[in-house]
Amino acid sequence: MSDAVPSFSLRSGSKIPSVGLGLWKIDQDATAGVVRDAIKVGYRHLDAACDYGNEKQAGEGIASAIGDGLASRDDLWVTSKLWNTYHRPEHVRAACERSLRDLQLEHLDLYLMHFPISQAFVPFEKRYPPGWFFDPDAGEPGIKEDPVPIRETWQAMNELVDAGLVREIGVCNFGTSLLRDLMASSDTHPAVLQIELHPYLTQNKLIRFCNESQIHVTGFSPLGALSYFSLGMAEPAESVIEQPVVKEIAANHDRTPAQILLRWGVQRGTSVVPKTSRVERLRENLAIADIALTDDEMNAISTLDRHRRFNDPGDFAEAAFNTFYPIYE
Amino acid sequence: MSDAVPSFSLRSGSKIPSVGLGLWKIDQDATAGVVRDAIKVGYRHLDAACDYGNEKQAGEGIASAIGDGLASRDDLWVTSKLWNTYHRPEHVRAACERSLRDLQLEHLDLYLMHFPISQAFVPFEKRYPPGWFFDPDAGEPGIKEDPVPIRETWQAMNELVDAGLVREIGVCNFGTSLLRDLMASSDTHPAVLQIELHPYLTQNKLIRFCNESQIHVTGFSPLGALSYFSLGMAEPAESVIEQPVVKEIAANHDRTPAQILLRWGVQRGTSVVPKTSRVERLRENLAIADIALTDDEMNAISTLDRHRRFNDPGDFAEAAFNTFYPIYE
Repeated sequence: MSDAVPSFSLRSGSKIPSVGLGLWKIDQDATAGVVRDAIKVGYRHLDAACDYGNEKQAGEGIASAIGDGLASRDDLWVTSKLWNTYHRPEHVRAACERSLRDLQLEHLDLYLMHFPISQAFVPFEKRYPPGWFFDPDAGEPGIKEDPVPIRETWQAMNELVDAGLVREIGVCNFGTSLLRDLMASSDTHPAVLQIELHPYLTQNKLIRFCNESQIHVTGFSPLGALSYFSLGMAEPAESVIEQPVVKEIAANHDRTPAQILLRWGVQRGTSVVPKTSRVERLRENLAIADIALTDDEMNAISTLDRHRRFNDPGDFAEAAFNTFYPIYE
Repeated sequence: MSDAVPSFSLRSGSKIPSVGLGLWKIDQDATAGVVRDAIKVGYRHLDAACDYGNEKQAGEGIASAIGDGLASRDDLWVTSKLWNTYHRPEHVRAACERSLRDLQLEHLDLYLMHFPISQAFVPFEKRYPPGWFFDPDAGEPGIKEDPVPIRETWQAMNELVDAGLVREIGVCNFGTSLLRDLMASSDTHPAVLQIELHPYLTQNKLIRFCNESQIHVTGFSPLGALSYFSLGMAEPAESVIEQPVVKEIAANHDRTPAQILLRWGVQRGTSVVPKTSRVERLRENLAIADIALTDDEMNAISTLDRHRRFNDPGDFAEAAFNTFYPIYE
C-alpha cells in the first residue's frame, strides 16, 4: 500500500512522501492509535513537533506499527521541529535528542526550525513542551525573547546532520528574504520549507522562489480553516471546503472536497500534511494520487486566494496573551 | 524658517526633520536647482541615494545653498543609500565615499541599506550608478545575485560610523523578521527603517514593531501612486490623492489633499520624503506642521489600506526584464 503514495525528491535525492499525517492538535490519548492506524492504511510520512505535545505518544504508535511489521523504519519519513526556546546553539542537540527519545527513533528524516522566533530557554524539567510562556514557572503565558541570530541556530542544526541524528534540515514560516539571507549565510541550504498553504493563501511567489532554490515546500493546514475554528482563529464562513467551486470540482471527480484540496496542493508540487484522527479520513486524505485536476480546475481553485493566513503567531499572541509579536509583516 | 519643520528623535537623540525632499526621479538637470530651492524654502532633510543618479547634482545644490548662507551643513539632514552592488564588506566604504564626494559632504547623517538584495559588484568606472543589470558591460538589464549575509554588510556599515563618515545607519524595505534577525546579529540596531508608506499601504504592525524597537520609520512615496504612473507600475485609478475621503478632509481643513496625506504620515510618527520639482509644491509639502487631524480623520484615512505596494523590486524586475525576484513574500 505504501507505494500508492508518490513522493517528491529533495535536493539531496531523498524522497519525501507527498501526503503525510500532521500531528498538530491530535489529542495525546488518541495519538498512538492514530499513528498506528495511519501507518496501517499506508501513511509513510509523519509530521511531528516538540510543540505538538504528543511526540511520546506518536513514538508509541510508530514502535507498535514497526513491531507488528506494518512498516520498517526505513519506510517512514518522520519530521520533527525545533521549538523556539531551543534556538541557542547549546540547546539544539538536546532538543533534537529529546524528540528522538520520545519518538523512539535513532534519527529524524527532517528537522525543521519551527519559527523564526527565539524565546528564552526553558529547561525540560521545568516545562515540556515549553509552549508560549513569558514565565513558565508562574504559568504566565507570553513570549519572552532571547535573540539568537538565525544562522547560529541553523549552524547547530547542521551539526545534527553531521552527527547522524538528522538526515535533512529545513525551516518553517520563513519568507523569501529570510530564506535568501539564510542561504547567503550558510553553505547548507534548507532542504524543506514548511508553510501554511491552502487556496486562501496560495503563496505562489514563495513556492516559485523555493522551486528555483531547490527547496521542497510542505504545506500545513492544506484544508484551510478547519483547525482554527476551535481556536477562535477562523470563522466558520471561512471554510475553504465549503467553497462552491471546490464542491463542484469534487462532484465532477466523484471525490470529496478535502481530497480535491489535497490534490490541488500535491499537484502544484508541494507535499501536504493534513491532520485527522479518524481512520476513514486517514484513508480519504491519502487516496488522491489518482485524481488529475485539469489546468482550469487548478486555476479555479487558486483564484480563491485572499492572502488569508490562519496561523500567525502574532495574531495568536495578541489574542491569547495580549502580546504584540508580528513576524510576517 | 527651518524651525517651522518639527523633527523626530532617533534612539541616539539625533533629530530627523519630519518632512524631507525625496530625490528619487528628480531629473539630473533639475536637481541642483530643486535642492537649492528646497533649502531656501526651509527644507533641512534631503533623501538621496546612489541609485537615484543625481547625487552629484544634489551636491551642487547643497553647496550652492550653503555657500549663499541659506543653511549651514549642521542645519541639514542628508540621507544616502548603499546600492545593492556594494553589499560585500570591502565595497561598502568606497560606495559611501563616492556618495560623500558627489554630495560634497564630509559625512552623511544617515546611510541606509537600500534593499535586502545583494547584486554582483560593478566597478564605478564600468557603470555608475550601477542600477539593475545582469551584465552591465552589455547593457543587459537584470539582477545578477552575489549573496552576502545582511549582517556582514551591516557590520561594514557600522564601521562607517566608527570612521566618522556616517552618523546613523539604517535599512530600507525590511520586514519585522529581517529586522529582528539583524538586531539579534549586531549590537548596533538600525536607527531608521525606510519603507513605502501611504494610506493604501499603512503597515501598522511594522510601524508598531519599529516604535517598540526604537527604530524611527521614514515613509517613501507618501502620496501613493504618483511616482509610479510614468513607470507603468500604477493605474491612474489608484491615486490616493483622488480618494473622496482625502479630498473631503482637505476641504474641511482648507488644505490640499497632498498636505493631508503628508500630515497623516507625520501625525502617525513617521517622517515623510515626498518628491517634487516645483517650488510651489515644495512649499506646500513642507507647510503641514500646523494641521491637526482628528482621530476620526486619521482613522478614516487609515481605513483606505489595501496592502497595495507600488514599489516592489520583484514586480519591477518581472515587468522590466522578466526576472523573478520576490523580496516581500
